[in-house]
Amino acid sequence: MGGKRDSYTTSELRHDWLADRWVIVAPQRSERPEDYSHVVSVHNDSSDCPFCCGHEFETPGTLASYCSANPVGSKSWQVRVVPNKFPAVNGLRYRVDASHGLASHGPASHAPASSPHFPLTVPIDSEAVLSTGIDLYVRRELSGGHEVIIESPLHLQSLSQLDRETVGLVFRAYRDRLAYWRCERNSSYAVVFKNVGYDAGASLAHTHSQLIATDILPTEVQRHVARMEEYERIEGACLFCRMLAEETEQGVRIVDKTARFTAFCPFASRLPSMVNVVPNQHSSSFETLNEVELDELAWLTHRLIRRIERCYPKAAYNFVIHTAPIHKQNSTAFHWRMELFPRITKVAGFEWGSDCYINPIAPEDAAASLRTVGL
Amino acid sequence: MGGKRDSYTTSELRHDWLADRWVIVAPQRSERPEDYSHVVSVHNDSSDCPFCCGHEFETPGTLASYCSANPVGSKSWQVRVVPNKFPAVNGLRYRVDASHGLASHGPASHAPASSPHFPLTVPIDSEAVLSTGIDLYVRRELSGGHEVIIESPLHLQSLSQLDRETVGLVFRAYRDRLAYWRCERNSSYAVVFKNVGYDAGASLAHTHSQLIATDILPTEVQRHVARMEEYERIEGACLFCRMLAEETEQGVRIVDKTARFTAFCPFASRLPSMVNVVPNQHSSSFETLNEVELDELAWLTHRLIRRIERCYPKAAYNFVIHTAPIHKQNSTAFHWRMELFPRITKVAGFEWGSDCYINPIAPEDAAASLRTVGL
Repeated sequence: MGGKRDSYTTSELRHDWLADRWVIVAPQRSERPEDYSHVVSVHNDSSDCPFCCGHEFETPGTLASYCSANPVGSKSWQVRVVPNKFPAVNGLRYRVDASHGLASHGPASHAPASSPHFPLTVPIDSEAVLSTGIDLYVRRELSGGHEVIIESPLHLQSLSQLDRETVGLVFRAYRDRLAYWRCERNSSYAVVFKNVGYDAGASLAHTHSQLIATDILPTEVQRHVARMEEYERIEGACLFCRMLAEETEQGVRIVDKTARFTAFCPFASRLPSMVNVVPNQHSSSFETLNEVELDELAWLTHRLIRRIERCYPKAAYNFVIHTAPIHKQNSTAFHWRMELFPRITKVAGFEWGSDCYINPIAPEDAAASLRTVGL
Repeated sequence: MGGKRDSYTTSELRHDWLADRWVIVAPQRSERPEDYSHVVSVHNDSSDCPFCCGHEFETPGTLASYCSANPVGSKSWQVRVVPNKFPAVNGLRYRVDASHGLASHGPASHAPASSPHFPLTVPIDSEAVLSTGIDLYVRRELSGGHEVIIESPLHLQSLSQLDRETVGLVFRAYRDRLAYWRCERNSSYAVVFKNVGYDAGASLAHTHSQLIATDILPTEVQRHVARMEEYERIEGACLFCRMLAEETEQGVRIVDKTARFTAFCPFASRLPSMVNVVPNQHSSSFETLNEVELDELAWLTHRLIRRIERCYPKAAYNFVIHTAPIHKQNSTAFHWRMELFPRITKVAGFEWGSDCYINPIAPEDAAASLRTVGL
C-alpha cells in the first residue's frame, strides 16, 4: 500500500467491519476553500475553578483520591474523583411513565424494578410484542453514575501537561472506578472518556476525565459485542488480535508502540487522525491492568496526545476507553481498546443523515504524520 | 404529559424506535458552568465568492438552473445546480484493491463491475464468507454524484433570507435532482442536506444545499428501512403515519403545521430542538411532490428556520431530506421526512463511544419554545 500513494487523491469507500459501516476516505476534500474561522476563548481564572486545589468544597464529596509519592507543598491530593455536579445519569429505580397517552405495554413495563436483566433493547419480533403492539413512546428512569476524575490540583488544561507519575495516577483512577462499577448491582455498562477543548464538548477547562455507568447497554455497544462474537465464531479468533497482527505486518498505519500496547490509525476511521490503542495480548477488560501495565499505557497515551497536539496545534480532542460490558468480562471475543481523536472536522448534514462519514485524511497519511512528528 | 412538567428536571431514558437507540434527556445538564466561548468569523466578501452572480465560470458547468418569474436586473438565474468542485463521491466503476496484503476475497470482489445489486453490506454469516474468511480490509471505489444547489445569485447566508418564490424554486431543484438520481444507473441512495454556519460543517457562507448520490445504501439507512418494514409487518401500518396521529393527539411536541405537512420535535430526539417535518398523507418519496406541495413545504421550512433563528440567534443549523432509497420507491412502509436541527451542543466522548446521546432540552420544552416564539 505504501507504493500506491497517489491512490489517496480520489475518494474510496472502506468498510469498518466492527461497526458494519462504510466510510468515505476523500483526501481531495481538504483542499476546499473556507469562509469560516473561529476563535475559542477560555475563561481561565483558577480563582473560581471548582476543580482547583482549595475549592474542594465546591464539588460533591470525594469518591477516591490519589497522592503523589513526593507531594509538593500542602497539596493533599494529586488526582481526585467526585460525582458530577450536573449528572447525565441519575435515579435509582426503574419507572415506566404511561402518561403519554398510549397504554404502557411493551417490554419496559414488564421489567421488575430490581431486575439486573432488564431487556437491553426493545425486541421487534417477540411474541410479547406481537400480542401487545409496539409502543413508540417507551421511557424509563436511568440508573447508574456520572463521575469526574480531576487530574491535577493545578489549573492545567491537557493531560499532556501532567508529569509521568500523575498521568499514571489518573490511569489508576480509571481502573479503580471501572472496577467499582463492575461490582455495582444493576450495572450493565461503564465507560471512561475525556473531552478537551470547546470542539470536543468540554465545559470546564481544568484537565479532567469522566466516567458514566448505566443499567442499560447502549444499542451500538451491544451491536459491537455481537460483531466481535460473530467474528470469533466464524474465524475462531479475536477480531482485534487478528487485526493487530495484520497492522503490525503492514506497518503503514502504526503510530507508536510499547512492549505491551500498540497504537494505530484504523483502516476505516470515520474521523480524521483517529488512533486506536490496544493491548498486544488479548484482554477483555481495562480494569484488570496491573500497575506496571497502567504506567506504560499512561505514558504512551501522554505521548500520543503530544503527537496530536504537535500535528494539530490547539485542536480539541477526545478519548474513550471501551472495556467489556459488565456481563462480558473475560470474553475471548471482546478486546478492550482506547480510541483517541482530535476534533479537526465538523459533522455535517450528510453524516447526520446517513451515518456514513467523510474522512478527509487517509489513515495511512494520518499515521505517517503522527508517527514522524518531532516530540 | 403536559401536567408533569417537573419530571423534566431529572434524566430519563427515551427509546427511539426507528433507530433502536436510547437517548438520555437531561435538562439539568444545561445549568452547567461554561469556561469556553467562541466567536466565528465569516469571510464575507462577495467579490471572490464562487457562488455569486458573475462568478459562474468558477464552478463546474451548470446542471440545472431556475429563473424567477419576475427577474430583477440582469440576473439570468435565481437557483443554480452545479457539480461540487471538491466532491466526496467520484469514480465510475467498482474496484477492489488487494494491495493491502490480504487476499482480495470476500463479497466485494465478487461483484460484477456493472451490477446494480452490489451487496449493500458485507454479510457476516453467508456460506461465501464462511468458506473464504472475513476480510477486515474491504475497500472499493464509490460511484455517484455530489452536487451543490446555489440558492441565490446574491451573497445571502441563510435560507430564511430568501423570498417566498425563491425558496419554492430551491425545493423544486431538490425534487428535480432527486428525481434525476432515481433514474441513474447503479444509484442506490440520494440525500439532500444543508449545512449553515461553522458548527454545522459549512465551508462556504453563500446560501446553498447539497445532494450526494451513491451506489451503496449506507448501513444505518438500510437499518432504518428494515425497522420501518418490521413495524409495518407487526402493526399493519406505517410507523410515521401512526406516529403522526399520536403526535397530533398529544399536541405537546407539535411546532407548526400546514394543510399537508406537520412539524414536530421527535419524542427521542438525540440533538436538542430537532424538528421532523413529514407529509400528513403517506408518501415514500419527496421527489413525487407537485408544485403546490413543494411551495407549501418550502414556506413551512422557511418559517421553521426563522423559528430556530429566533430561539437560538446565530446558531448554525442543518437539515436532511430522507427520501426512500431508489429500490424502495412506492414503499408503504417508508414515509419520507425532513430533519432540521440547530447545532447548539457538541458531540462529546460519551456520545462517540456509546452512540447514546445526552439531550439537554426535553423535546416538549423545545417544541413549546419553537411554537410560541414571535416571527
